[in-house]
Amino acid sequence: MKALVFDGSLRFDPSYPPPDAPADWAVIRIHCAGICGTDIEITRGYMGFRGVPGHEFTGIVTECDDSSWIDQRVVGEINAACGKCEWCRKGLGRHCPNRTVLGILRHDGCMAEYCTLPVRNLHRVPDEMPDDHAVFIELLAAAYEILEQVPVSQETRCIVLGDGKLGILCAWVLSTVCGGVTLVGHHESKLKLAAWNGIGITTDTSSLAPADLVVEATGRAEGLEQAAVLCLPRGTIALKSTIAEKSRVGLAPLVINEITVVGSRCGLFDPALRGYAVHRFPLDRLIAARYPLEQGLQAFEAARAGGLKVLLDVA
Amino acid sequence: MKALVFDGSLRFDPSYPPPDAPADWAVIRIHCAGICGTDIEITRGYMGFRGVPGHEFTGIVTECDDSSWIDQRVVGEINAACGKCEWCRKGLGRHCPNRTVLGILRHDGCMAEYCTLPVRNLHRVPDEMPDDHAVFIELLAAAYEILEQVPVSQETRCIVLGDGKLGILCAWVLSTVCGGVTLVGHHESKLKLAAWNGIGITTDTSSLAPADLVVEATGRAEGLEQAAVLCLPRGTIALKSTIAEKSRVGLAPLVINEITVVGSRCGLFDPALRGYAVHRFPLDRLIAARYPLEQGLQAFEAARAGGLKVLLDVA
Repeated sequence: MKALVFDGSLRFDPSYPPPDAPADWAVIRIHCAGICGTDIEITRGYMGFRGVPGHEFTGIVTECDDSSWIDQRVVGEINAACGKCEWCRKGLGRHCPNRTVLGILRHDGCMAEYCTLPVRNLHRVPDEMPDDHAVFIELLAAAYEILEQVPVSQETRCIVLGDGKLGILCAWVLSTVCGGVTLVGHHESKLKLAAWNGIGITTDTSSLAPADLVVEATGRAEGLEQAAVLCLPRGTIALKSTIAEKSRVGLAPLVINEITVVGSRCGLFDPALRGYAVHRFPLDRLIAARYPLEQGLQAFEAARAGGLKVLLDVA
Repeated sequence: MKALVFDGSLRFDPSYPPPDAPADWAVIRIHCAGICGTDIEITRGYMGFRGVPGHEFTGIVTECDDSSWIDQRVVGEINAACGKCEWCRKGLGRHCPNRTVLGILRHDGCMAEYCTLPVRNLHRVPDEMPDDHAVFIELLAAAYEILEQVPVSQETRCIVLGDGKLGILCAWVLSTVCGGVTLVGHHESKLKLAAWNGIGITTDTSSLAPADLVVEATGRAEGLEQAAVLCLPRGTIALKSTIAEKSRVGLAPLVINEITVVGSRCGLFDPALRGYAVHRFPLDRLIAARYPLEQGLQAFEAARAGGLKVLLDVA
């Protein structure tokens, strides 16, 4: 099959071996995949991953023991958990120590004609959701993860730092629950796209009042310090950026102001699918470019330039 | 009055002007003061403080509008809050933006014959508590602060990093609530002193199972990274060390394992006094040396050497 493969460098392989599905797994024919910041980090050596990258996708089930899944259009949660350990029993397979992760950890990903996932990871895509929106569900779930971890209400004032895809989605999701949300970024063009549902947008934090909840989605090491300045005493910072390298950070303000920092990663797909059904987030706005899989290297170049979402059309 | 004074360097002043108490404040004649890590940081320039340092004390009220306080032996909470702002109304005067802090922020401290505090900050010392124990109440309250911020139970397994005074007190306090507490340090002698109430002690973390709650009280920048390694996914790190300078930290494990980091500073005195009444923590063990106030510079030298508590006998 056609695939992008990372083995120290990224290349397009026209004849990569297609995957087999174990029992209780499905083979999915990929329609569309998204390039995520983590994929870019992987091409720089993050996680020591080798194989097919990619974990944002939508596609059609082509093989599965349970025939009711065949030909269903699906998205899939990316952590393939063991289902038996204490984490899995608590419903936290995302933290299963035995897990593989699609395109990230010991499991070929979705930048290929086919990928595999456990059937329990799959979610049917509603007819009214186009492929170009479905491919965002994984990222939207990461934004909804904040609501699973941090209690918020109409009274909660939020600042989201970072006008990348994840920052914008976090602002959109929080705006459906919280009274006041301000998105802070560096790019006027992205901020304009992000304006939705009453969200305030700004490039200048100097006049911002500190908030109860600050989401750090800058992708930069300095983000945590900036978040601490903008967070009220006893407030919460949701830490979304995964920075592989060590960074110089001043931690004293976290202690002095007794701030809580909540590390926040992948989320469950159900809240994201339910949220989309109600709020119809304008996901089209987040698509910067699309390339056929064969032009995957150019697509990664475009994604590295730091714009919005770059999609790979596979089939 | 006699006082230690920091004005860029630390000196003993035999005739520093004694403080006056505003309405609703008391003058306290100091019996005994403790030297804390923060005091040492202050003599290195932390907080830009100038004046009399010191915030750990016990003493006798000598002046107060409310005569029922006169001659009472007291300890005192160190944040002098405005009492009117939203923080004060929420009972969080410790975060009042208008506060002064005894010996730390715009308020002369207790390394002197007299200091002042608002009457509402004072707590009577029970007769059965010797001065040498009362002087630890401020630090014991900082340990109890963890219980105010983090839900724990008999099921909670804890690791405390740091065998300094605060680390040991945190381990003692947690051992009164949690099922299993292990204290990790570098000093066999301090760890032996810390063994109490079934606490495990070790210098070697290699065989430690990750815990639900890790208290970071190392006083070192690397402490947070070590805590992240020893914390279970979705677990909590109580961050106690106030490191003035920036430090190089790898934050990715906090995100990947969705760890919550809770900055934790001063605590209320009531829980500490109630805890002492029940558990009679063996605070004598934590006293390394004592000096008269006149020998304050030698006392600071001894405290900087990094042992346990150095006390100043004032009267």
